[in-house]
Amino acid sequence: VSRLREEIAEQPAVLQRLLAEQTPAIEALAGGLRDQPPRFALIAARGSSDNVARYAQHVLGHLCRIPVALAAPSLHTLYGTPPRLDGALVIGISQSGASPDVTTVVADAAAQAQVTIAITNDRDSPMARAARHVIELGTGEERSVAATMTYTASLGAVAALAAALAGAQHLRDELDRAPEAVAAQLEQPVDRAAERAARWERCAVIGRGANYGTAFEAALKIKELTGIAAEPYSPPDLMHGPVAVLGPGHPLLAFAAAGPAAAGVDEAVEEARRRGAEAIVAAPDTAAHLPLVPMPEWLSPLGAVIPAQLLAAELAERRGVEVDRPFGLTKVTRTT
Amino acid sequence: VSRLREEIAEQPAVLQRLLAEQTPAIEALAGGLRDQPPRFALIAARGSSDNVARYAQHVLGHLCRIPVALAAPSLHTLYGTPPRLDGALVIGISQSGASPDVTTVVADAAAQAQVTIAITNDRDSPMARAARHVIELGTGEERSVAATMTYTASLGAVAALAAALAGAQHLRDELDRAPEAVAAQLEQPVDRAAERAARWERCAVIGRGANYGTAFEAALKIKELTGIAAEPYSPPDLMHGPVAVLGPGHPLLAFAAAGPAAAGVDEAVEEARRRGAEAIVAAPDTAAHLPLVPMPEWLSPLGAVIPAQLLAAELAERRGVEVDRPFGLTKVTRTT
Repeated sequence: VSRLREEIAEQPAVLQRLLAEQTPAIEALAGGLRDQPPRFALIAARGSSDNVARYAQHVLGHLCRIPVALAAPSLHTLYGTPPRLDGALVIGISQSGASPDVTTVVADAAAQAQVTIAITNDRDSPMARAARHVIELGTGEERSVAATMTYTASLGAVAALAAALAGAQHLRDELDRAPEAVAAQLEQPVDRAAERAARWERCAVIGRGANYGTAFEAALKIKELTGIAAEPYSPPDLMHGPVAVLGPGHPLLAFAAAGPAAAGVDEAVEEARRRGAEAIVAAPDTAAHLPLVPMPEWLSPLGAVIPAQLLAAELAERRGVEVDRPFGLTKVTRTT
Repeated sequence: VSRLREEIAEQPAVLQRLLAEQTPAIEALAGGLRDQPPRFALIAARGSSDNVARYAQHVLGHLCRIPVALAAPSLHTLYGTPPRLDGALVIGISQSGASPDVTTVVADAAAQAQVTIAITNDRDSPMARAARHVIELGTGEERSVAATMTYTASLGAVAALAAALAGAQHLRDELDRAPEAVAAQLEQPVDRAAERAARWERCAVIGRGANYGTAFEAALKIKELTGIAAEPYSPPDLMHGPVAVLGPGHPLLAFAAAGPAAAGVDEAVEEARRRGAEAIVAAPDTAAHLPLVPMPEWLSPLGAVIPAQLLAAELAERRGVEVDRPFGLTKVTRTT
């Protein structure tokens, strides 16, 4: 069995351990922030971690009413013109903590005396050393190039931070039950979907609200593991032009977790089918191609990413890709 | 000749008119903001206007040190949990001003008594009526579905706002010379590039810094006009996984305007070629596939989008697409 498959299977335990070990530090950190709430958050991240940042924009906005900006690292690294960050909460998300761009954003914020948090597997990394606070993912070494358990752990860290900032016990209770739902999600079959997608060479992937980041992470897993050109969108962004590419030979993968965002996803699926495009839908419905285990919507990305990972792994195996080190990618990508 | 070709050709005049007519209002608005600088900006937009927002994130950060967040409209429209916007400058960008999602973000900011600006062609639109300030694009009716002159006018409005907020005369002078450079860019040939791209079915598009938004706009024009699946990235985002899709049959289109971002674009082009992918490069070099007329980097997106528009139009015509109304798209897309 591949390391990828092993790491996918470890995710419920990884999430449970993260919550057990990091909750006290997250609660303490949130207590300080509740006394002096940030005007906005700025998040620096790349790759899968950037998809966690997309989730953070939703959940910190939705539960905590904090506006979230995703950093433009080039302003910090190439142009030497970092924005003024008065009143900001600055978060770096990086498994390795080693990428110079993400580290520089955190360091610039620290130099401006703003509150900084590093979410990382390595508390001795440059990014962690630059930050005032560290949330350790504690996944142990992730050896497969495609991030799975560090993605889930980072999502869990952001969810825990949002629940703590919101200061609502029922959110904490819901989060504590998430590992069990993720374990149940791992038992759901993806073979019907894999059979349908077996000959795909390109596709669009959609999700919205809590699962906007899920669409991006699903597309990234599919691209890096299978080489299929999968492009992510929110349903409105798809409708503003890119819908033109859908049709026979350009199918759609849709994430429709229960919640206010589901109706718009369903409408986009209908439009895709009207244009002759095949569609695979992940939804909390046992008849769906990818059945989702029901979870509170704000936590549903923890479950919804599982069928995306399993589908990408299954398609990669069918294509004969070396799944632990696909397409000559390396585990740590150092960009500026 | 198509309306699309006519509207592409009108862009230097459109830009010149915008600068002549709107500069006094923009200077007045910026004067007020300089007295009470915003902590951050929040921009709501869709489609081509969202690519203008990507430019705004660069230029307001680079010239004015203002951090910029791109809105998550679902928080406003679907979830009813708009973020707290204390100290924000909120900008809506929409040619029609008619899309409910963008209008709702502006209206929520106005309800929180924040400074709001509508950048639009229609000062009687719902978005314009919701905003405190209006910058009128004044392009006249854009009849081709694919936005070209409204994109350029919106870029110009954002550039003028950034120059006014920075309060630097040399920036204003540079901007005043931009229409002439855009006119010169329209004379540059795209036929060598179109010949190379004639059989493309998918591609990646890259740009960074000032031209991050250019990559997104080029990809959008190619998608909506030709049906080619073009996916935009910054070079570092490409390297964090998606580079796996590049190879024979999955080429790259790269925007390398002169400036700090060019080196990273060039490196990504080399990596693409190493993987066997064909590459078309837009650069300020008469030997480039797409030669760019030299412009100050912060204004280079006004020029760099021209070859992208011309290439998309040329490819669409070769494919027999009805370019003024491609793939059943409509001019005004009303999303929530």
